[in-house]
Amino acid sequence: MSRQDIIEYLGEDWDCVLALIRDRLHSDVQLLEDTNSRLLSNAGKLLRPMIALLIARAIGQPNEDSIRCAAAAELLHNATLIHDDVADESAERRGRPTLSALLGPGPAVLVGDYWLARSVGLIIDTEHRDQMVRAFAKTLTDLAEGEMLQLEKASSCDTREEDYLRIIHCKTASLFLASAEAAALSVDADPARLEAACAYGAALGIAFQIKDDILDYAGSEALGKPVGVDLKEQKITLPLLAALDGSPREAEIRALVRDIPSHPEHCGEIRRFVAERGGVEKAADRLAEWVERAVRALDAFPDGPAREFLTSIARFNNFRQV
Amino acid sequence: MSRQDIIEYLGEDWDCVLALIRDRLHSDVQLLEDTNSRLLSNAGKLLRPMIALLIARAIGQPNEDSIRCAAAAELLHNATLIHDDVADESAERRGRPTLSALLGPGPAVLVGDYWLARSVGLIIDTEHRDQMVRAFAKTLTDLAEGEMLQLEKASSCDTREEDYLRIIHCKTASLFLASAEAAALSVDADPARLEAACAYGAALGIAFQIKDDILDYAGSEALGKPVGVDLKEQKITLPLLAALDGSPREAEIRALVRDIPSHPEHCGEIRRFVAERGGVEKAADRLAEWVERAVRALDAFPDGPAREFLTSIARFNNFRQV
Repeated sequence: MSRQDIIEYLGEDWDCVLALIRDRLHSDVQLLEDTNSRLLSNAGKLLRPMIALLIARAIGQPNEDSIRCAAAAELLHNATLIHDDVADESAERRGRPTLSALLGPGPAVLVGDYWLARSVGLIIDTEHRDQMVRAFAKTLTDLAEGEMLQLEKASSCDTREEDYLRIIHCKTASLFLASAEAAALSVDADPARLEAACAYGAALGIAFQIKDDILDYAGSEALGKPVGVDLKEQKITLPLLAALDGSPREAEIRALVRDIPSHPEHCGEIRRFVAERGGVEKAADRLAEWVERAVRALDAFPDGPAREFLTSIARFNNFRQV
Repeated sequence: MSRQDIIEYLGEDWDCVLALIRDRLHSDVQLLEDTNSRLLSNAGKLLRPMIALLIARAIGQPNEDSIRCAAAAELLHNATLIHDDVADESAERRGRPTLSALLGPGPAVLVGDYWLARSVGLIIDTEHRDQMVRAFAKTLTDLAEGEMLQLEKASSCDTREEDYLRIIHCKTASLFLASAEAAALSVDADPARLEAACAYGAALGIAFQIKDDILDYAGSEALGKPVGVDLKEQKITLPLLAALDGSPREAEIRALVRDIPSHPEHCGEIRRFVAERGGVEKAADRLAEWVERAVRALDAFPDGPAREFLTSIARFNNFRQV
């Protein structure tokens, strides 16, 4: 099952989402119009609107509100990416210069706000606007809470697994949850299916982030993604947490993390510790559990291609595909 | 009439707005809680919630929705200030270090988003949520359009007065308009008074920005505000536009503006040109017109202290107070 299979299955609905995104980003200010077009031409995998449409399709018949919330999810996601690039002072995203690098941070922050506003503008036109706006606003507050908690923990170096799970829920899973929730609302899902959609989105988002965090230890620069970034920033993620669990060296290793800013060479020793303790493998086991949790949530949906695609998307995160 | 007189007049409603803002910014993430408290302790003049409550009071009896939209206006305004500080890489605001300087741009952008989300979270609970959310979203898109138009015009140096008015409407007046509109909606204003509230907010915002732009030419560093900043950034504002109007040197002066990045010494000559042509005085005349436009809009409201306070706030922008 490829991405193209999903897009073909979604058919006209998919085209409507893309058209709606383009439509809502039009501006008669030429520089803004050009900027938005450039950003659109460098779109990513559009995973969130894909999941939204599949959920709507798994539960019922996607309608105009499903299209709106799928488009809104992508706009919100991109708004946060634009803001991330400003925040990280990133020069490139997906191989092309960031907005911040091209126009400076000022316009970039505001363009992010523009996409945010367009996202809200889409869902305020839906029937279940109240719940959808609340879900989207919750995601925005979650993003800030996740970042601040991560920052707080990076300085104290006492991240526990529950902190880690909260951080990645806020940073990544919350937006998947909101996209899935809005999609389920758009087709008037009953309470059990609405809850299942939320559970799927949340578990998928957690799995997605755990995979990303594992790749920071187990990936290779050849994949085009720098490795070891989290540890340099004193972020204690699941592979290290799993390695620390039950280790007599826990206090010693946490102290090494605390000293990374003045002793970056500690990273090597900490990575060796993670390897010796099988941290990556343990984290991969936890990842598999979250993937299965996402798949199990889909039990509330009727059998059919949409549910199968949602299952494949979840399983794609797994390192141990059968 | 002082600010304190207005606060006393608003009485309990004012306290409710302040309490609601504090309440909505609570977070169990300690670093975010501390950050929000620090930002709140350095609040500005709270002009937007003040205007919102006065408008509600001028038209009817402020209710919970009036309190909510007044608080939401302040949250939105502060969110944009937090983002401005990131964008400008400002080290200080109101004499204290910016969030961006304290925690870095990443957390600061997200905290701005958090305040934005809290603002939307307040108005989604009101009766007229649809119109209010649309008004607030419009303000956010206006801010980006204004910034991008300003940037476009700064590089072409062909700003006309209509461009200037659009830029300052987007950058400053739009939020005053949205605050006034939401306040009028909260007390179920009839269409004529709703329109009057919007007209007042828009004209007041324009006057506010023209005054700011005049001070960039006519102010003194002693007032604590740096002078000549706009011109250095090639922003053509009303004092220069007024000086250019009908001048045979227009093309020559615009060419000087265009060359400012490589020839910052041109600023001196351009400022002399503005002084010789009475640009500041002409801009002050236009300011007075906008102030009177704001005051005239209030004719739709019944006589009484709220309307008088709104009149004073508008006239306070005038340089030629009688």
